[in-house]
Amino acid sequence: MTLKVYLSGEIHTSWREDLIAACDGLDVKFDAPVTDHGASDDCGVAILGAEDNKFWHDHKGAKVNAIRTRKGIEDADVVVVRFGEKYKQWNAAFDAGYAAALGKSLIVMHQAEHQHALKEVDAAALAVTETPEQVAQILRYVLTSVLPG
Amino acid sequence: MTLKVYLSGEIHTSWREDLIAACDGLDVKFDAPVTDHGASDDCGVAILGAEDNKFWHDHKGAKVNAIRTRKGIEDADVVVVRFGEKYKQWNAAFDAGYAAALGKSLIVMHQAEHQHALKEVDAAALAVTETPEQVAQILRYVLTSVLPG
Amino acid sequence: MTLKVYLSGEIHTSWREDLIAACDGLDVKFDAPVTDHGASDDCGVAILGAEDNKFWHDHKGAKVNAIRTRKGIEDADVVVVRFGEKYKQWNAAFDAGYAAALGKSLIVMHQAEHQHALKEVDAAALAVTETPEQVAQILRYVLTSVLPG
Amino acid sequence: MTLKVYLSGEIHTSWREDLIAACDGLDVKFDAPVTDHGASDDCGVAILGAEDNKFWHDHKGAKVNAIRTRKGIEDADVVVVRFGEKYKQWNAAFDAGYAAALGKSLIVMHQAEHQHALKEVDAAALAVTETPEQVAQILRYVLTSVLPG
Amino acid sequence: MTLKVYLSGEIHTSWREDLIAACDGLDVKFDAPVTDHGASDDCGVAILGAEDNKFWHDHKGAKVNAIRTRKGIEDADVVVVRFGEKYKQWNAAFDAGYAAALGKSLIVMHQAEHQHALKEVDAAALAVTETPEQVAQILRYVLTSVLPG
Amino acid sequence: MTLKVYLSGEIHTSWREDLIAACDGLDVKFDAPVTDHGASDDCGVAILGAEDNKFWHDHKGAKVNAIRTRKGIEDADVVVVRFGEKYKQWNAAFDAGYAAALGKSLIVMHQAEHQHALKEVDAAALAVTETPEQVAQILRYVLTSVLPG
Amino acid sequence: MTLKVYLSGEIHTSWREDLIAACDGLDVKFDAPVTDHGASDDCGVAILGAEDNKFWHDHKGAKVNAIRTRKGIEDADVVVVRFGEKYKQWNAAFDAGYAAALGKSLIVMHQAEHQHALKEVDAAALAVTETPEQVAQILRYVLTSVLPG
Amino acid sequence: MTLKVYLSGEIHTSWREDLIAACDGLDVKFDAPVTDHGASDDCGVAILGAEDNKFWHDHKGAKVNAIRTRKGIEDADVVVVRFGEKYKQWNAAFDAGYAAALGKSLIVMHQAEHQHALKEVDAAALAVTETPEQVAQILRYVLTSVLPG
Repeated sequence: MTLKVYLSGEIHTSWREDLIAACDGLDVKFDAPVTDHGASDDCGVAILGAEDNKFWHDHKGAKVNAIRTRKGIEDADVVVVRFGEKYKQWNAAFDAGYAAALGKSLIVMHQAEHQHALKEVDAAALAVTETPEQVAQILRYVLTSVLPG
Repeated sequence: MTLKVYLSGEIHTSWREDLIAACDGLDVKFDAPVTDHGASDDCGVAILGAEDNKFWHDHKGAKVNAIRTRKGIEDADVVVVRFGEKYKQWNAAFDAGYAAALGKSLIVMHQAEHQHALKEVDAAALAVTETPEQVAQILRYVLTSVLPG
Repeated sequence: MTLKVYLSGEIHTSWREDLIAACDGLDVKFDAPVTDHGASDDCGVAILGAEDNKFWHDHKGAKVNAIRTRKGIEDADVVVVRFGEKYKQWNAAFDAGYAAALGKSLIVMHQAEHQHALKEVDAAALAVTETPEQVAQILRYVLTSVLPG
Repeated sequence: MTLKVYLSGEIHTSWREDLIAACDGLDVKFDAPVTDHGASDDCGVAILGAEDNKFWHDHKGAKVNAIRTRKGIEDADVVVVRFGEKYKQWNAAFDAGYAAALGKSLIVMHQAEHQHALKEVDAAALAVTETPEQVAQILRYVLTSVLPG
Repeated sequence: MTLKVYLSGEIHTSWREDLIAACDGLDVKFDAPVTDHGASDDCGVAILGAEDNKFWHDHKGAKVNAIRTRKGIEDADVVVVRFGEKYKQWNAAFDAGYAAALGKSLIVMHQAEHQHALKEVDAAALAVTETPEQVAQILRYVLTSVLPG
Repeated sequence: MTLKVYLSGEIHTSWREDLIAACDGLDVKFDAPVTDHGASDDCGVAILGAEDNKFWHDHKGAKVNAIRTRKGIEDADVVVVRFGEKYKQWNAAFDAGYAAALGKSLIVMHQAEHQHALKEVDAAALAVTETPEQVAQILRYVLTSVLPG
Repeated sequence: MTLKVYLSGEIHTSWREDLIAACDGLDVKFDAPVTDHGASDDCGVAILGAEDNKFWHDHKGAKVNAIRTRKGIEDADVVVVRFGEKYKQWNAAFDAGYAAALGKSLIVMHQAEHQHALKEVDAAALAVTETPEQVAQILRYVLTSVLPG
Repeated sequence: MTLKVYLSGEIHTSWREDLIAACDGLDVKFDAPVTDHGASDDCGVAILGAEDNKFWHDHKGAKVNAIRTRKGIEDADVVVVRFGEKYKQWNAAFDAGYAAALGKSLIVMHQAEHQHALKEVDAAALAVTETPEQVAQILRYVLTSVLPG
């Protein structure tokens, strides 16, 4: 069994790298959105032409990014969505809803302080975690039956 | 043509009532989540038994609410999601993602200040509005070809 | 909002009648399998001709019953599955799996003693109940926002 | 033609190993749930943190196991479900219902004594067997046209 | 429960009328193909213009008839397919395959002499009958739990 | 049998009214896009605010119109697409492709001169017509078995 | 582009071998049912135990064969169905209907004498052929743009 | 991540070759229709026999071409549709609608002069481009996060 895992959400820490490192040796294929914040914001106008209006600037970019995001989520067996400590992160919650509607196995990662605000997202998940290490332990168990410790 | 419209998101203002009033005479069937905040938070434990742990308290409630939310979104032709000025509102973004994945016509409502943070959600929408009146105008136009003014 | 609710599982107590009575006044349409145990066992051979082999006797009947069961589950918004205190009740668990795969909102009903054996079924449910009254309370809340008490 | 076969159900005998050995040389890819009973029961709390309440202990574990189970069933061409001689085995029947709703080719394995109780499950199957050897003969025939004996 | 039933296949006897009469009082909605053989053969050219080549004459007609046939099968809960004693009746078998692929409950009707030739069709059915009366008994039982006699 | 028919394409002649009149007495429910050309072009900016750039002016309008178009096509049993004598009419061909991918019964209407250019669209259709009267004859035949003349 | 092609229907001539030979060098993966008539008829009882009643003898076999047939059709891009000169061949028409409902590209092969009886099947096909060579020419053209001669 | 990209539309310039060359080194698999205009027009009659009537000549060819077109679009992650400066190009718009209904990521390419006529197609797209280089830049960014310049 090979698991295809899409890593959605927060892009300002090294959680993706930590998770991927912790899964070393497992039969997992990871995908993720573009995590270069500047490129992600400007990709639309950089390729398709400048816009005076910030709304359309963002609109063009969000649609180009959607090519990658949709592909990643639709191909995945498991979608991991991490909510960080800052920002609105509505795109993370949007991805979680998108994944849930497609019947993907959803793993959510967030700190305890966000528990109440994320209760609807957590309710759609098969696991609610706090750390990349926990996600890696889940993937290891799912693939090899081996538990930590 | 009858449009089934689900009204997701912010529950602390009268936008749903305003919208429904502004659609008077149109062939629209509206649905919405439970908007009684207290009942929505406590429905799980009130019916299924108390929990010591706040996580499971919320979990039970979120799942009971999901019965209504899923039914409302899955039956809808149009899903309107309003992001208010306060709170994280991750459930609103989750609903938007869920609706988008099901191919529903999505209308988003929010103030200009949230434009950048909501760009991925807006990019999946067929209309981005600021007021209930605009949504009513869209529904009137879609059903009767009549534009405002 | 009208909820279509399919009542699967145990057929030796009056739980369906109790639940339906407790939902008086709600906008719910109930369906259920044939609950006449004798008719259910013999419908195949009674209509399609006798079989010497008990396997085929049962096979014919199970397939005729499947016409009703599939229709009921596929049309439902909510599938309630009750596990009684006796018998194997594998058809109840089969219905629960069938409903889960179709993305139906699943409500499970069983006594505490079966909790461990039913953990996979419960994990797919939006509510785990013990009594028809709890299910009625859920349906009332989902449809009217009113909580018990 | 490569067949992907998921082996669901009873975990206390060597039927999976027997079946896999009997399919030696065939173009079959097998998957199965975690069959380490202890790990399967405790995986949720071992990774995600302890629970006082046995219900939530089991709930967390069942959801983590669902990541593997759903993936296995959804990827499979054929789902084999074995009912052993003991225990309730509601998860086996749940898997059978889940597989049936997805249109998977279902093969059931059980002793004659369970025939009546499993008639609804058997009615959804393309073959009802008693031994791993019979399942291996089916897979060999399906892939190579060769019958036993 | 209302059953929508599509009556496919043989058009030279009164089996549809017999079945509908025998279902008097039941909550069933019947649909069927055009059963006027001449109109069915010529509808394409009568409306869309004559063809010299018999193949295209038939082709135009078969496609116009497909508008009704597809609608009838896709809307149905139960598809009854009757194979008569004469003719190739490949369209009946085609409809049965079409219905099976859509997951419809399939009831087949034919005389014993065709049993071997129809084994693949019968294997996809939930009931194999010989007479309209048997089909009526099945529909009555499915809707009312009442068995004949 | 009630047929839901969506009338897509050319909006500068009275073909929709002619067709609907010719179907008088038939059990058909018609839907269509907004056929007020001016309103259709300006609906986006009239409701959602003006745009300097003609591309975004059109973009907003096309998305608002898509709410009606998608609903109409997705609800339809039959989609009729008429190609007129002038203009590019790419939206008509787009609707035809959309309908074909959803498995709708497609009826195309165009003059002989466009036959070669429309061959891919015609190849996906169940009928290729030249006049509203022919479409009405098809719908009458499909619903009542009656042929013209 | 690799085409997966399923070869359904008549099993008493060498048309499959002829077609496969004529496709030498093309990027095609062929699948087919078991074409050993005796094995196909007896596979059910040979593996699952004898039956006194010919109906159940056939039923068991047809279901075992369905494991291969369904897999082959569901995996295919193109389904070729050949109707020979003898026998009822209802399973061929059933496969054609099954493939059509799944949206597969259907190629039919039969002699001119069967044209009228197969008009509904032909109407669902993308090509109606008479010889394996024609099918090979289609596959060659589809994959390489090269036409015969 | 490997992107499967289908290149639909205009066949009289070298845009496909330009695009593929500009994507050198990227993990992209390209497919396209047959772009030999003569072969594409005549494939039906060349293989399946001549027709006197131009409509059926074209019909046979369009259906044979549909085998490749459907396969290409259905397998694709991204569908690029280019509208050239001449011809009706209704097949291009048909492909765009087909792709949109399947939820494919759609990229449209056309000159500014066609902007108004293509507004419904553009509204369904994730990017509207003018040159193959822009499409290559999008694919490069989606796969590698690298922007031009």
